[in-house]
Amino acid sequence: MRPGQVLFTYLHLAADLDLTRELLGGGATCIAYETVTSPNGTLPLLTPMSEVAGRLAPQAGAHHLERAQGGRGVLLGGVPGVPAAEVVILGGGVSGTHATTIALGMGANVTVVDRSAEALRRIAAQFGSQVRTIFSTRDAIRQIVKRADLLIGALLVPGAAAPKLVTRDMVQTMKSGAVVVDIAIDQGGYFETSHPTTHSSPTYVVDGVVHYCVANMPAAVSRTSTFALNNVTLPFAISLADKGWRKALAEDPHLRAGLNIDEGQITCRPVAEAHGLPYAPAESS
Amino acid sequence: MRPGQVLFTYLHLAADLDLTRELLGGGATCIAYETVTSPNGTLPLLTPMSEVAGRLAPQAGAHHLERAQGGRGVLLGGVPGVPAAEVVILGGGVSGTHATTIALGMGANVTVVDRSAEALRRIAAQFGSQVRTIFSTRDAIRQIVKRADLLIGALLVPGAAAPKLVTRDMVQTMKSGAVVVDIAIDQGGYFETSHPTTHSSPTYVVDGVVHYCVANMPAAVSRTSTFALNNVTLPFAISLADKGWRKALAEDPHLRAGLNIDEGQITCRPVAEAHGLPYAPAESS
Amino acid sequence: MRPGQVLFTYLHLAADLDLTRELLGGGATCIAYETVTSPNGTLPLLTPMSEVAGRLAPQAGAHHLERAQGGRGVLLGGVPGVPAAEVVILGGGVSGTHATTIALGMGANVTVVDRSAEALRRIAAQFGSQVRTIFSTRDAIRQIVKRADLLIGALLVPGAAAPKLVTRDMVQTMKSGAVVVDIAIDQGGYFETSHPTTHSSPTYVVDGVVHYCVANMPAAVSRTSTFALNNVTLPFAISLADKGWRKALAEDPHLRAGLNIDEGQITCRPVAEAHGLPYAPAESS
Amino acid sequence: MRPGQVLFTYLHLAADLDLTRELLGGGATCIAYETVTSPNGTLPLLTPMSEVAGRLAPQAGAHHLERAQGGRGVLLGGVPGVPAAEVVILGGGVSGTHATTIALGMGANVTVVDRSAEALRRIAAQFGSQVRTIFSTRDAIRQIVKRADLLIGALLVPGAAAPKLVTRDMVQTMKSGAVVVDIAIDQGGYFETSHPTTHSSPTYVVDGVVHYCVANMPAAVSRTSTFALNNVTLPFAISLADKGWRKALAEDPHLRAGLNIDEGQITCRPVAEAHGLPYAPAESS
Amino acid sequence: MRPGQVLFTYLHLAADLDLTRELLGGGATCIAYETVTSPNGTLPLLTPMSEVAGRLAPQAGAHHLERAQGGRGVLLGGVPGVPAAEVVILGGGVSGTHATTIALGMGANVTVVDRSAEALRRIAAQFGSQVRTIFSTRDAIRQIVKRADLLIGALLVPGAAAPKLVTRDMVQTMKSGAVVVDIAIDQGGYFETSHPTTHSSPTYVVDGVVHYCVANMPAAVSRTSTFALNNVTLPFAISLADKGWRKALAEDPHLRAGLNIDEGQITCRPVAEAHGLPYAPAESS
Amino acid sequence: MRPGQVLFTYLHLAADLDLTRELLGGGATCIAYETVTSPNGTLPLLTPMSEVAGRLAPQAGAHHLERAQGGRGVLLGGVPGVPAAEVVILGGGVSGTHATTIALGMGANVTVVDRSAEALRRIAAQFGSQVRTIFSTRDAIRQIVKRADLLIGALLVPGAAAPKLVTRDMVQTMKSGAVVVDIAIDQGGYFETSHPTTHSSPTYVVDGVVHYCVANMPAAVSRTSTFALNNVTLPFAISLADKGWRKALAEDPHLRAGLNIDEGQITCRPVAEAHGLPYAPAESS
Repeated sequence: MRPGQVLFTYLHLAADLDLTRELLGGGATCIAYETVTSPNGTLPLLTPMSEVAGRLAPQAGAHHLERAQGGRGVLLGGVPGVPAAEVVILGGGVSGTHATTIALGMGANVTVVDRSAEALRRIAAQFGSQVRTIFSTRDAIRQIVKRADLLIGALLVPGAAAPKLVTRDMVQTMKSGAVVVDIAIDQGGYFETSHPTTHSSPTYVVDGVVHYCVANMPAAVSRTSTFALNNVTLPFAISLADKGWRKALAEDPHLRAGLNIDEGQITCRPVAEAHGLPYAPAESS
Repeated sequence: MRPGQVLFTYLHLAADLDLTRELLGGGATCIAYETVTSPNGTLPLLTPMSEVAGRLAPQAGAHHLERAQGGRGVLLGGVPGVPAAEVVILGGGVSGTHATTIALGMGANVTVVDRSAEALRRIAAQFGSQVRTIFSTRDAIRQIVKRADLLIGALLVPGAAAPKLVTRDMVQTMKSGAVVVDIAIDQGGYFETSHPTTHSSPTYVVDGVVHYCVANMPAAVSRTSTFALNNVTLPFAISLADKGWRKALAEDPHLRAGLNIDEGQITCRPVAEAHGLPYAPAESS
Repeated sequence: MRPGQVLFTYLHLAADLDLTRELLGGGATCIAYETVTSPNGTLPLLTPMSEVAGRLAPQAGAHHLERAQGGRGVLLGGVPGVPAAEVVILGGGVSGTHATTIALGMGANVTVVDRSAEALRRIAAQFGSQVRTIFSTRDAIRQIVKRADLLIGALLVPGAAAPKLVTRDMVQTMKSGAVVVDIAIDQGGYFETSHPTTHSSPTYVVDGVVHYCVANMPAAVSRTSTFALNNVTLPFAISLADKGWRKALAEDPHLRAGLNIDEGQITCRPVAEAHGLPYAPAESS
Repeated sequence: MRPGQVLFTYLHLAADLDLTRELLGGGATCIAYETVTSPNGTLPLLTPMSEVAGRLAPQAGAHHLERAQGGRGVLLGGVPGVPAAEVVILGGGVSGTHATTIALGMGANVTVVDRSAEALRRIAAQFGSQVRTIFSTRDAIRQIVKRADLLIGALLVPGAAAPKLVTRDMVQTMKSGAVVVDIAIDQGGYFETSHPTTHSSPTYVVDGVVHYCVANMPAAVSRTSTFALNNVTLPFAISLADKGWRKALAEDPHLRAGLNIDEGQITCRPVAEAHGLPYAPAESS
Repeated sequence: MRPGQVLFTYLHLAADLDLTRELLGGGATCIAYETVTSPNGTLPLLTPMSEVAGRLAPQAGAHHLERAQGGRGVLLGGVPGVPAAEVVILGGGVSGTHATTIALGMGANVTVVDRSAEALRRIAAQFGSQVRTIFSTRDAIRQIVKRADLLIGALLVPGAAAPKLVTRDMVQTMKSGAVVVDIAIDQGGYFETSHPTTHSSPTYVVDGVVHYCVANMPAAVSRTSTFALNNVTLPFAISLADKGWRKALAEDPHLRAGLNIDEGQITCRPVAEAHGLPYAPAESS
Repeated sequence: MRPGQVLFTYLHLAADLDLTRELLGGGATCIAYETVTSPNGTLPLLTPMSEVAGRLAPQAGAHHLERAQGGRGVLLGGVPGVPAAEVVILGGGVSGTHATTIALGMGANVTVVDRSAEALRRIAAQFGSQVRTIFSTRDAIRQIVKRADLLIGALLVPGAAAPKLVTRDMVQTMKSGAVVVDIAIDQGGYFETSHPTTHSSPTYVVDGVVHYCVANMPAAVSRTSTFALNNVTLPFAISLADKGWRKALAEDPHLRAGLNIDEGQITCRPVAEAHGLPYAPAESS
């Protein structure tokens, strides 16, 4: 990167000191997708990837439940006369809602666990009595994990490491050939037993349970993901191109929230704190 | 009854020797609703009562699951964050399908058990993945009964005593305060522990399980039941009135199948056999 | 109660001078579920009981429409060829929405009446054309009440006496054997003809109309209600236990809104005003 | 037509003596779509037109309910807070089922009236509690007609003149600006007040009620109708072309049922009887 | 109008200098429905008309797709074996959502185009996978317009002229006999080829495409529209009548936002600006 | 196998001369699942496998559309703002119906192609306007194949080689990275380009199109498949065990239809004809 250049992409600098240093040295203006905000307090450039990952999770889980992939050999939706698989989804936010949509669509018995009563009500209103909603307590998770054929960790806590909701001893109580899909692996993962895998070697087995913990899940459907991302980044990109980045940032506080590095200075507090480097607030005009 | 009179109503003579003798002596022409047939082999004047009873069963079950009625104090549909009750319906025919409709509508987790793969497929096609279908084996029934908050016996085998699918030792494994509804009680009942009750005193408790075994359930909603019955009997009644019973019977083999007693003779073989009395086939012209 | 004790439960002190005096004298710290607030302005510890009561209302109504309970003898959902019952729900808020869910599920023809266009739109978006929505005017209520088989008063106005939307002369126009369920009876009830009843003797008849006005309806399904309540109170209870009540209240303005009595002083203005007693605002730190 | 030619199309000869004579004289082989049969006893080449007409009926009705078309000025589905229109559909067969699909989809309150309990059960199973089903009696029709904003006559009785289910005095009880759509007008129509109209002048008013009685309704959507018809006639056309008509007719009794005129002789009994002309059965080989 | 009179209705003064002058001269107090606001920033007295227009659009489109109206002769929902029509809806706001409801209900293949990711998510959550959602770009519109049988412009931008999203050369690529419905015609219309028409002569043809651009569409269903409007204006009218207009305006900032002319002065900035007349802010007390 | 032994399993002898000879020599009684019949003319022991394979097909297709599996990188259901994939299902029978259920549930745009108008009507009645139904002609297939992201051959013609509906030149017109799933591969396959693959190496690429043609697909979910198969074979197995095979066969013509080899003689005509060996009809008593 050279001074005067503008970088507008996913950066995740808090987790990458080398990249941070390189960008600081290059003098470029670095706007990170993942910290751009919206009027209602969400991170709108992360939402499409949460949607894609949520929808992929049951598909990945169903595939790895097949016998040849090491799974229990159960069909998510069963057939008439043979019960459907039990799918447990931890988290009823964006990813969890989309995972629920697809898991129900594939015919599974779906249970959503969340500690927010509001989230459970939203799930219940959208899906009706088709989906079981359970308030999240450590004990409730322990009970439900045992019964799961497919367990999806779908709670994304923006900017924070994912909590280890499912411990190793819980995994040991799961059925042999059950599958866990950890879509928070980029944040460290939900499961004590999780570690990142790749699209070319997506799973490993712990205590008889197949773990699917692929980093950057949305790349599996790159065509869909690219369009989804473009839809939300395009207006910002046009603003940057039309007005010049300085004016675009000055006029839009939500885009400005995405500014991580500006003229060799870190303008995003969490990034500065993560690396113990100095922080300089972005100017608003 | 006097000679020349025509009786067209429910009779159930096979179970009532006194009534049979009285009607034989009176000389009346007795056409029983319950043995009239239809072109597709069903008993069309029984169907509405099966529909009503099926729809009433979850309503009765939900009421008796209330604490003040001796039940477990669970709400059929739960609320967001609290799981719904488990409703198990034995039988996927007319009554079972209607019981499923209402139980699902009240938000319960519904499992239908039947030994006919065709019945389970029909249930699955009509209700989709909302309902669990399980092939009926003794072992499957034993397992599922344990988990039920509400267990509905909904299998009507026309003209036969209901099989005792649920034994006393199965009932003993049920949760305390669970409810069973036995809609086949008029045929003897499904449960070893069943005996008929009345609308004014509808339940009793065995091994902690509330038993609702009301004979003639449809009388609870007499207004609805009367209209439902009239809809199906009216065309036959009009035919009897317009043509005279002899011509009406002669022209319609399905109505003729309803003829149980004619001029002092039993014209319905099962009735004759039940009482060891002589049988005379109805003339077709 | 003794000084130093913390009471965290439903209190409803504005309606109970004796209890208020006793608690003031005892010196306890009294936090009332019903006045705890949430960031979006609702009363989150009341919501689960509104949900439970709303879902129970059609179940109670259906039961009391049975002939043996004094009702008209109609089945909520009818059967094919016989029309469903007309269910009218006054109020499209939390209770009304849940009552709608269950009444539709039982197959009834459902009309929701509300004076908020927003509430009617939310109902229409959630249930589609299955439910009829009517803007609430005195005349509209008068017309619709006449046609109802089951009339549910489901409008909870937090902290206020329920408006008498349905007058005695309107009740006189209702069908004989129709049922009214007044879920606002704890607030005085919707109907001029309402007075509180109990789970053991739930109904009385006025002008041929069965009145179900059970106080504390959710107790009917105590198991479900307890879990539902625990889900929402637990985080506050943990906070109180972990931090001590003083710190917990100081840090959380929503919990603090629940503080009704503190060291012998009334800290909730409506309670003070209801009894003409002095009011002392809760300290925020 | 000349001898040796084969005519394979709609003919409706029973209603057209001139055409019958002309075809008899020409010596052609005339196979009428409307009398070809299927293994399950239906008239398969009529079904697509019944589907199209059924789906068009609510669309035509909704349009003519508009003020500028003389209607009451009501929107079929209402909007939140304003009730939907009442649509009454006489007949729950093919046309009635498709009319129900579209009327429900447009948000109307739909009532289906039929005298077949089986038909009402099929409607209830397909559409659930969204649609009201009523058993057809003269009295029921009289009551329901009064309340209808849109009344659709949708009962096709193959080969017979439509029964006049709705009399002039019933029409007089309808609301001013209500609309009737008579899709059986090609068979003489359901309503005493019906007479055929055209696509260019589709309606007339009797007693304040807009009558839409367009003959050959499916021509309104000729593109859709043509494809629908081709789908079902194509296999027969291919058989005629591949095998020659004589062999094709000999081998397929269902196609043979379509043969109305063969070598100057009427081979369809109802056509012969309608015109008092001699009848010669088609040879089967 | 005379001084002292209060006018409370739709006015649209920015577009009508003559009316503005007349009202200024008359001395009346003029409150315009269209500028009354709500707490959540919407224009609540416009919403019902957006709902009605949205629901009418597919109905109008379906009618004009009929052959006799100049359309392609396709049925919106097709029939089994013949594909449904392609309906493209530009705008996923109030009108677009209601248009989607009805178009789906009529069986069409529906695509909604919007430039707001939030709007598309709301559509997707409400309708599920039944509806296709596409992010709005000039290129996406160009591609989708070609495939449409029915194209509905449903984006209302309050107070602003509608953007010309569909250009003349795009219209030229449409199928012959396709229909466009422009519900923004009161704001100038979406289509370069749009100009206002009337209920008595609703369409004209450009490049083979039928244009339905009726001004004041909701008048077609005046009965429904009147009730819908009364529901939302009534509370304000009661307030004006009960309190007197001055007090009512003083106490309610949302009603006050509706004040356009007060004692000969323009109190609505956009109206003043539109006509280059002086602006005097409404007093708040 | 030894004389006196009874073999009751899948045999597929017509395709396996060696096995046929071995069984003939051994003298065993061989009853083949795949030729057992039912009263309604279906092959009931094949149905469960058709259900499983149909449900697996979209799951397999979705997986292989992932980039790492060589697919186009599209998500079956898209996300809001990004269109879903186009899934084309050839055949609307048992497998096709189940494939449709799952593909719709995963959010795809689904088109079902069949040459039976009845099958298309059944699909349309079950799934409503969510699914597009197209009458099968060579031209229609050619057009639709081009647009498919996922093409599923789901037409099982019992006992016959599958027709090659999709030719190599059609495959060449497909999008690069599209996926075909051929569930009729055990019958030779639908596609000219199909040849059997295995669960461990399930795909190959022809003309840029990923081919998934795994023989014995249901083995992927062996647990589900085993239960499904047991449900339907159990009653026959019990009958064989209880009565002895000779009596069981004598009494049940449907089980008898499964008898392929009896005391060294081929009793199933197609097997005999396939191998040019003598045929001896099974005795009926």
